[in-house]
Order: sequence, then structure tokens, then C-alpha cells
Amino acid sequence: MRRVGEAAFSKVEKINSELFSLTYGAIVTQLLKDYEEVDATNTQLEKMGYNIGVRLIDEFLAKAQVGNCGNFGETAEVIAKVGFKMFLGITAEVVGVSEKEFSLQLPENPLAEFVELPEQYGSLAYNNMLCGVLRGALEMVQMRVECSLTKDALWGDEVTEIRVVLKEMMEEEYVDDD
Amino acid sequence: MRRVGEAAFSKVEKINSELFSLTYGAIVTQLLKDYEEVDATNTQLEKMGYNIGVRLIDEFLAKAQVGNCGNFGETAEVIAKVGFKMFLGITAEVVGVSEKEFSLQLPENPLAEFVELPEQYGSLAYNNMLCGVLRGALEMVQMRVECSLTKDALWGDEVTEIRVVLKEMMEEEYVDDD
Repeated sequence: MRRVGEAAFSKVEKINSELFSLTYGAIVTQLLKDYEEVDATNTQLEKMGYNIGVRLIDEFLAKAQVGNCGNFGETAEVIAKVGFKMFLGITAEVVGVSEKEFSLQLPENPLAEFVELPEQYGSLAYNNMLCGVLRGALEMVQMRVECSLTKDALWGDEVTEIRVVLKEMMEEEYVDDD
Repeated sequence: MRRVGEAAFSKVEKINSELFSLTYGAIVTQLLKDYEEVDATNTQLEKMGYNIGVRLIDEFLAKAQVGNCGNFGETAEVIAKVGFKMFLGITAEVVGVSEKEFSLQLPENPLAEFVELPEQYGSLAYNNMLCGVLRGALEMVQMRVECSLTKDALWGDEVTEIRVVLKEMMEEEYVDDD
């Protein structure tokens, strides 16, 4: 699908999170049906998230009015307190910050409200789209990262946790207008 | 995915519509890839919506605090002004009401923000999930309906329009507790 005119989208519109979580559930179910196994579904959810993240970053930068982050820990705080709030209506906690790593803990998760994983899908990374979104969005601001779901309330953990590891600060590409 | 405890969900949570429309776009893209043709994708989007509608009705009834509708025109108004507002943050216009039919016109549509259909997908009923949601939700309140997308801004129409036709008022099933 081609998408046009995103710059003109100037206010943050909201929709119901129940509709969102059901719609997201429909994707996960469809992918499990298509790929017939959990690992491939996990991978595909991450890829799908990546494609969403590379687009979502524009809205974030246009509306969040945040400055450049001085270090990776600041980046973590902005994602946790501004990004998650803007898109999912929740805030995350930042833990385990170092120069090149941090984790985001979600005390609640609108993607997975009311979801229970059936036994045969116990290793499904249901929320892997979030990892992809972070990877895609950060790549657009010159940070190549790897993200992984390290804990998940659906797996019985207390919180859902995403580990983000900085692999490379990418060079900005300057495009010559001529 | 099994979903539990929906009755405990007592406030209307909101998430960002841009994230929702990108996520919905990812579903449509995935289905086009899977089914490799537009008609089957249209059908699948409607079915997916149906499954969502049969669940969403609970939240609607719990929060909308609307009474029974006296006739099909009243049902139309409740869907247009309360249902669309609650779930998509927009209201629809009701047109062409008769005893067994009405149409809902959406002046804007959060599902399809910034989407353009590529030429080869000109007949894609991108918004068909909405038809399914209505069919599923209404079936849960004893109305068997057929819904179809009769106009779509993505097809070049001024508005997006869903025609709803009542096929049957179903008998309520009383389940004997013994």
C-alpha cells in the first residue's frame, strides 16, 4: 500500500484500544495460519513492525517535539515516556541502561489485552511487532539496533520487557539535490 | 487466540490512530500476499471483521449505555453516532433508511489514512473489515445482516459508504442452566 501526505497529518487522533488489540490479534492468527510455525511467525511480526516503525517515526518527530538525545540512556527515556505514551497510551520503565543497551518494561500492554497463548504456541513472541517498530523507528534516526522480547506477561512473566542493543550509529546520508 | 476477562475491562482506552492504520495496512498487505487475489482478500477481511465484531459488541453494550432500539433506523443512528465514535473516534451519517436497510457514510476513515490503492488492486475493498465488524456485532444482538462497501474514498468516491441490509431478526436463544 502506498501512503501519501503524512506531513499534513497534524493532530494525534485516537482510536479504541480494544479494536486495536483485536485487529492485532487477527494479524497474529493469520500469520500463524500462513507460516504454520512459531519461529517464522515471530520473524514476520518483527518485520511487519519494522515497516510500521520506519513510517511512525515521522509522526513522532513531528509531534513529540523532543530534541536530540545526548546518549543512549536519554533515547531510552524518550521512547519509554514519550513514544509509548503517544502511540499506545502507556509509559514504559527503563531498566538496565548502559552505553549500548537498555530494556523497556511494560507494566501493561494494549496489544495483548485479554490474550492467552494456547499451549502449542507457548514460545510465540506475540508482541514481537513492538520490537520491529523500535528497530524501524530507530534506524530512521541513525541507530541500528537489535530488539528482542526478553520477558512477556503472556509467558507468565510479571512484565513484558524488550531489550534494545545498539549495534551501530549510522552515518547520516546527505542527498545532493542536483 | 483465546481472550479472557473482557468484562473486567471497564474504561475506554485509546491508542494512536496512525499506529492502528499502519497495523491494519499490514494485515491487508499480508492477505493480498497470501490469497494472491483481490476477491479472496475482500472476503477474508470481512470474515476477520466478523470475528472482531462478535467480541467488540460486549464492550459496546457495557459502555455505551444505550437502550433497545425500537426500529432499524434507530439501530443505524446508534451505530453511526455511538459505535463509530467509541471505536474509531469518528461519527458516520445515516442515509437511505428504510425498515430493512440503511447506509452509513464515513466522511473520514481512520483505517485508510494516507492509503492509495495501486492500480492492480483497484477493486480491493480495503475497508471490508468494517462490514464484517458490523455483521458480527449485529448478529450478537439478534440481527442477521448483510453489509457491503458501496462507496469508498479509495475508489475515488466522496465518502466511504457501507450498506446494511437486515435479513432476519433472530430468535434469542435461552440456555437452560440445567
